[in-house]
Amino acid sequence: MDMLNQQLNFILELDRLKGVYRQALVKSDQNRRENSAEHSWHIALLAQVLQQYADRPVNIHRVVTMLLLHDIVEIDAGDTFAFANAEQLAAQPEKELRAAERLFGLLPASQAQQMKQLWLEFEQVETADAQFAKAMDSVMPLLQNMANEGGSWVRHTVTKNQVLQRNKHLKTAAPKLWDYVYQQIELATNNGWLSDS
Amino acid sequence: MDMLNQQLNFILELDRLKGVYRQALVKSDQNRRENSAEHSWHIALLAQVLQQYADRPVNIHRVVTMLLLHDIVEIDAGDTFAFANAEQLAAQPEKELRAAERLFGLLPASQAQQMKQLWLEFEQVETADAQFAKAMDSVMPLLQNMANEGGSWVRHTVTKNQVLQRNKHLKTAAPKLWDYVYQQIELATNNGWLSDS
Repeated sequence: MDMLNQQLNFILELDRLKGVYRQALVKSDQNRRENSAEHSWHIALLAQVLQQYADRPVNIHRVVTMLLLHDIVEIDAGDTFAFANAEQLAAQPEKELRAAERLFGLLPASQAQQMKQLWLEFEQVETADAQFAKAMDSVMPLLQNMANEGGSWVRHTVTKNQVLQRNKHLKTAAPKLWDYVYQQIELATNNGWLSDS
Repeated sequence: MDMLNQQLNFILELDRLKGVYRQALVKSDQNRRENSAEHSWHIALLAQVLQQYADRPVNIHRVVTMLLLHDIVEIDAGDTFAFANAEQLAAQPEKELRAAERLFGLLPASQAQQMKQLWLEFEQVETADAQFAKAMDSVMPLLQNMANEGGSWVRHTVTKNQVLQRNKHLKTAAPKLWDYVYQQIELATNNGWLSDS
């Protein structure tokens, strides 16, 4: 198959991410569940708008590309709720790695290698770009839940400590945003949207 | 209001794009209509994957940002089908300009100015970046319809000439892709998915 056909097959396969639904709710569309494609769009723009708060210099193009790609493995592996049980969370990395092999493998070799590497960098959360990208991915549900009377936190009885832990990369990646997020978590706890146990 | 709150208000307002539905169908999710947020995600990745076909050098980061932002005016102005009647199409630019003023105006001034300028550049389709971005936006429905037995073309009795005209920017922006698209349009016409009148 020629290169263009490989590339277009990859793109058409990505269509399936629009059918992977998350726990987050879309307040502006009758509180239906959000899919991972529109979530990826939203956090790519979040990173653009908030890039000035990154503590270390980031390459915003790499950050945006990571965020656009980060969830495509869910096409095969499904979405796992951030606060799922330990067994479910433990099984996820292996499933996602197999998914990455298959999906990026649809592309011509050099492009497959480059994109898979970027996806792996995001997953490993070691570089400044990956830490900022991961922080954007984690903070978006907080913004959505705060604007939606607790949203998915309330439905799943999520605790304050879980959300603090979930947003830990923000503390180093963007301290000014961390201060804001910490206050929001306090507020959510006072409102009864997060459990304090 | 401080800068961070302005930025987060903008981001939360963008949530509404997930409730703006297009004519395109999501084959992999029970052929429901596609929303403009997930569409924007998809074409941002399309541009990344196909950037090698751009005839003139493009700044892929600017192209991706244009594509992530290009539809947000539909939050106020709604989506207009590419093959709507002349009256509907004529009313759209004025509505979209007002929407851009309001939406980008939620951001701090310098950021508002920069993003609105990028949106305008996309709309004017004069620079190499904008022409490649516009070509990606136009070609995606063709890829979707070809993978879906004619999809929205069939439902709306779209003609071959309309699709050729719609994809005209591809001819100069990415000639190798234009050759592919031209063949696909011929094929769709032979299949009866596009009307030949």
